[in-house]
Amino acid sequence: MKKADIGLIGLAVMGENLVMNMESRGFTVAVFNRTVEKVDQFVNGRAAGRNIIGCHSLEELVEALEKPRKVFMMVKAGQAVDGMIEKLLPLLDDGDIIIDGGNSHFPDTIRRTQYVESKGKLYIGTGVSGGEEGALKGPSMMPGGSVAAWPYVKPIFQAICAKVEDGSPCCDWVGENGAGHFVKMVHNGIEYGDMQLICEAYQLMRDLLNMSDDEMHEVFAAWNKTELDSYLIEITRDILAYRDTDGEPIVEKILDTAGQKGTGKWTGIAALDEGVPLTLIGEAVFARCLSAMKDERVTAAREYHREIPAFTGDKAEMIDAIRQALYASKIISYAQGYTLMRAAAEHYGWNLNYGGIALIWRGGCIIRSVFLGKIKEAYDNNPELSNLLLDSYFKETMEKLLPAWRKVAAAAVQYGVSAPAMTSALGYFDGYTTERLPANLLQAQRDYFGAHTYERLDAPRGEFFHTNWTGHGGTTAATTYNA
Amino acid sequence: MKKADIGLIGLAVMGENLVMNMESRGFTVAVFNRTVEKVDQFVNGRAAGRNIIGCHSLEELVEALEKPRKVFMMVKAGQAVDGMIEKLLPLLDDGDIIIDGGNSHFPDTIRRTQYVESKGKLYIGTGVSGGEEGALKGPSMMPGGSVAAWPYVKPIFQAICAKVEDGSPCCDWVGENGAGHFVKMVHNGIEYGDMQLICEAYQLMRDLLNMSDDEMHEVFAAWNKTELDSYLIEITRDILAYRDTDGEPIVEKILDTAGQKGTGKWTGIAALDEGVPLTLIGEAVFARCLSAMKDERVTAAREYHREIPAFTGDKAEMIDAIRQALYASKIISYAQGYTLMRAAAEHYGWNLNYGGIALIWRGGCIIRSVFLGKIKEAYDNNPELSNLLLDSYFKETMEKLLPAWRKVAAAAVQYGVSAPAMTSALGYFDGYTTERLPANLLQAQRDYFGAHTYERLDAPRGEFFHTNWTGHGGTTAATTYNA
Repeated sequence: MKKADIGLIGLAVMGENLVMNMESRGFTVAVFNRTVEKVDQFVNGRAAGRNIIGCHSLEELVEALEKPRKVFMMVKAGQAVDGMIEKLLPLLDDGDIIIDGGNSHFPDTIRRTQYVESKGKLYIGTGVSGGEEGALKGPSMMPGGSVAAWPYVKPIFQAICAKVEDGSPCCDWVGENGAGHFVKMVHNGIEYGDMQLICEAYQLMRDLLNMSDDEMHEVFAAWNKTELDSYLIEITRDILAYRDTDGEPIVEKILDTAGQKGTGKWTGIAALDEGVPLTLIGEAVFARCLSAMKDERVTAAREYHREIPAFTGDKAEMIDAIRQALYASKIISYAQGYTLMRAAAEHYGWNLNYGGIALIWRGGCIIRSVFLGKIKEAYDNNPELSNLLLDSYFKETMEKLLPAWRKVAAAAVQYGVSAPAMTSALGYFDGYTTERLPANLLQAQRDYFGAHTYERLDAPRGEFFHTNWTGHGGTTAATTYNA
Repeated sequence: MKKADIGLIGLAVMGENLVMNMESRGFTVAVFNRTVEKVDQFVNGRAAGRNIIGCHSLEELVEALEKPRKVFMMVKAGQAVDGMIEKLLPLLDDGDIIIDGGNSHFPDTIRRTQYVESKGKLYIGTGVSGGEEGALKGPSMMPGGSVAAWPYVKPIFQAICAKVEDGSPCCDWVGENGAGHFVKMVHNGIEYGDMQLICEAYQLMRDLLNMSDDEMHEVFAAWNKTELDSYLIEITRDILAYRDTDGEPIVEKILDTAGQKGTGKWTGIAALDEGVPLTLIGEAVFARCLSAMKDERVTAAREYHREIPAFTGDKAEMIDAIRQALYASKIISYAQGYTLMRAAAEHYGWNLNYGGIALIWRGGCIIRSVFLGKIKEAYDNNPELSNLLLDSYFKETMEKLLPAWRKVAAAAVQYGVSAPAMTSALGYFDGYTTERLPANLLQAQRDYFGAHTYERLDAPRGEFFHTNWTGHGGTTAATTYNA
């Protein structure tokens, strides 16, 4: 019997679909699942008649694989990955490759790459995005880890991944150790941001403009033919048109509480760790937290019984302004996300290809959009671009969008329809394009109460001054107090 | 020779001042510093003629102490604390008390309490706030750790700490293991928020209303006689009046880049970990990060050369509106901070006294203010209050402030003067008081691309539904993909 090209462990929906995808591209796949009945169900059901080999033990799986063996784990991120690595290592030969395709936290992938390499094997931690559809038809893939493993998995990954119009694969080598999972984490953070922005646009139309789901469906359908053309806008359009059994829009019957536990939170923590202002994704994560406080919100809403005043402006104009605010805010979100990747690359010593990452995200994944082509162009024009906002296309675009964006943000705060991501993004833009922020006062305060010292505009950087503000402070420098 | 009541290690400014403070309250203090010349300098200089015993080794220090010994460490947070604990443990007897008065991260204090207790000794991790002045004249203190240690250190801590008008000490037992340092961390996060809000008020006056430092000095002087009466407003008033040698306001010569590395960042991470929307402090931390990107901001400012349009409204009215926006935002910041403490208390099993914490912060510390008295009252009225915004005083206050707050937020976004904390706080308020947020759409999206399932408004909580949105998705539930 022909040996399998790759083995996959973990037959939940993503795992199954990846297997079907690989097999459809001509690869023979050996599969294993902890609950082994699942293997038989799959092999005799959906996988019947395909080049898919069901295995009832890890030994059997390893035995079934062509060398160097490639074992793709699709198991729950966390302990289960470490456990599976421990089980696999004694079964594998030197040079065999363990692949983690789950949403692992990048520091774990840094650690695991080092560990698996220390045992003579190779390791890849790869982001896989696109949900169940993507896994089946072509996901976006972000592999990082042992660079020596890449030539062996590249033909499979680039065969199964999504392609853009010109046929370029939405999968390329991202970088050393945890780089792939870091980029996937930022992708998910951006996904949080994109989803929050769409929600804010929807809420402004629903609660400020009192639009029906049908009307909003039409708006999203139209927006999907503009620069906003993207998977998330497309599914929003479809969701708004989807009827429940009683003929009413089903979305309005869904409870408005969203979970946050995973990668969005990690992205926020990474931004705090790197000191990168990632305000939009931060607000998006916190908006999910706030949504989860449903009972308390109901109480507060009844206590305050705020009414959104009747909208007095031009409705069509406001709808178009919301589109522009969404696009402008989205640009900010990606600018912030890319800034985070740059900071992390420097910190962890990864050599990231920023245009390449835009191309990977261009298709297959949840945040896929036409817009990412513009980001790719920006980095093609200048691979050292420090911030997307300094690219000429984006600068011109932002300047065009700015008046409408300000109008929407003003409406949100004046009418009282919460749009935290859009307003936060505008605050970032205004801060980023301000030469003199008020941090001089902040530094004075810190020097006043904690003798933290400050730098001066009229002195070289790195020269620190202290003022004895009260006339009776000491001259001892602060070394333990950090505010 | 009489034994000392307490020993202190680490004679930087905070340590020295705490020693002087303790001695002035009648306690004899033994002191030690790693660089021992510092001990002699201190004992022969500032401490000359006082009941302060200079020690040249840890052995000498331990020998000098009354039992149970109380050793107060004022060393740099991190490794140095662990190192000092290791050195102290073999020198101490069972029941002796090690105290960490630095800005340690609360998980470290949780771990150290357990470790030191396992060695038969007691441990206290205490927040100490108030900067150098506070340390000398009366800091705010937030002790947590081994509750058995509290009776021994209480007389000293409550003697040296700040007092409010009625004589109540700004120090009381906070809770088990890391509770003291957690509350100190939240204090520092709130301090970040308070400082950022003052900076935004200053920037709005400076850049939107084109006011001089003298005018702003007058404004802050007047504000300090309102509900905003607080240490940070007071020092801001004084800073704005402080002249450089050339007669110009010195604050305008200070470089506008602020550091963030410590407790503000930790507060943000804790909020993400607990799933608590701490948007204002988050924005304040990110505003510091943005301020630090000075060179990039200068470039961006020149690229975009935005001009703040001339202000067309009533100046005096806007100044008062800024005061109201500052106060409203500050209430949000504390409401969010208290929500974080509640969540952490539940998570870590701490029995926090929320009114007591307000009293601790009421004097001595950087965030001390009249306003904290109102928070104490709110929790005295209802110790189980789930959110400050639901207290009747704060509800009434917020309703009064709301129109001016909306006006300032609208001006910020329309004129392009960044006020991220004020606008973010308003977004939180509007979200918190909204019964139906747009997270229903978000849940529909997650179910669409990841089969995450959702709850319905018309079904009991905990019952999950999945819609086959595309008509061709699988029925397998998602178990590995988490967006």
